[in-house]
Amino acid sequence: MSDVDVEAPGQPGRRPRGRPGYDRDTVLRRAIELFNRQGYDATSINDLAVDLGVSKSALYHHFDSKEALLSAALDEALEGLSSAVAAAADATRDESAYDRLRATVEAAVHILVAHLPAVTLLLRVRGNSPLEMSALERRRHIDEQLATLVRQAAAEGDLRDDVDPEVISRLVFGMVNSLTDWYRPDGPIPPDTIAAAVAGVLFQGLHASR
Amino acid sequence: MSDVDVEAPGQPGRRPRGRPGYDRDTVLRRAIELFNRQGYDATSINDLAVDLGVSKSALYHHFDSKEALLSAALDEALEGLSSAVAAAADATRDESAYDRLRATVEAAVHILVAHLPAVTLLLRVRGNSPLEMSALERRRHIDEQLATLVRQAAAEGDLRDDVDPEVISRLVFGMVNSLTDWYRPDGPIPPDTIAAAVAGVLFQGLHASR
Repeated sequence: MSDVDVEAPGQPGRRPRGRPGYDRDTVLRRAIELFNRQGYDATSINDLAVDLGVSKSALYHHFDSKEALLSAALDEALEGLSSAVAAAADATRDESAYDRLRATVEAAVHILVAHLPAVTLLLRVRGNSPLEMSALERRRHIDEQLATLVRQAAAEGDLRDDVDPEVISRLVFGMVNSLTDWYRPDGPIPPDTIAAAVAGVLFQGLHASR
Repeated sequence: MSDVDVEAPGQPGRRPRGRPGYDRDTVLRRAIELFNRQGYDATSINDLAVDLGVSKSALYHHFDSKEALLSAALDEALEGLSSAVAAAADATRDESAYDRLRATVEAAVHILVAHLPAVTLLLRVRGNSPLEMSALERRRHIDEQLATLVRQAAAEGDLRDDVDPEVISRLVFGMVNSLTDWYRPDGPIPPDTIAAAVAGVLFQGLHASR
């Protein structure tokens, strides 16, 4: 099967002119799904070609290597989270650290939900290659920005003082990240509802008693 | 190297008489560690023998198969959690469902911390064999008992009513289970402190406003 013969499902009769039948984004979505299902290390480019029903060269049209797919997936997950946390960490805004922290957590839930498969893949990365090490480093940087925000909110007296800010930061990310284990964006609970639930429980739980 | 020549480290000169140098529990601990580090599917009995520096027959002295090791590890994780949840689900006790729920969460944190590697392994099981399917089924049963307790506490008016009890139950387990990602029992935070932190944040967060 040559590249030009490949047609994307749902587009019968629409023959791509000299280009593979799946666009770059579709290839990436399917790769992320397959990596999550059978593990990145256990998945070959050939597995992905079989899964999509295309030739390996059709895949190489879009991505140079399996690692380029992983890299694009991790970028997708990290860029959203980075910008949400960076925006909230911007201390020139005149809200309290507590309010900025709460806004960050709600934004993080929305990003996680919008990019659920990519974030799931990110959370499973264990540092088996320089690419994975660099993703872990970027995750650590995000964690540190959130921890700084937690420490500021604690210093401003808005957070309970019987739990260490580092632990608070871990528990916040723990609850948010656990959504990847069960939340489905196409299920009965809309993204806004889950973001409000997570932020509601966490911030009532974290608030200093008045 | 024959079985009788094998000596456990730290026991120089103490030659086991006709038995392998590692006892059953040590073999199980090391197997769980290795499964967590490189994945159960990717680990062979041979890898474990190399890791322990013993012959494969020394391992088979204690466990019939790799699956028998996984089975023992999953039993360890599940038995502690099951009995904690079953004790709390016992409605003949005269505490409120809210108090029993809180006690269960604290007990679950203690069990998770005491059996951290086994619980970590349990949480990674994806149902790739009848044994794994049965472990997932037992996990689901525990989840259901906790969800029932959450619904009772909600019905008794002690839980916030703006978040669905099923979601509350997921978020509670999400925060508790996330400890496997970072908490180290030999680190600076004692088990009692982390159990109090998790229960403190969760139950302040979940309580109905007065």
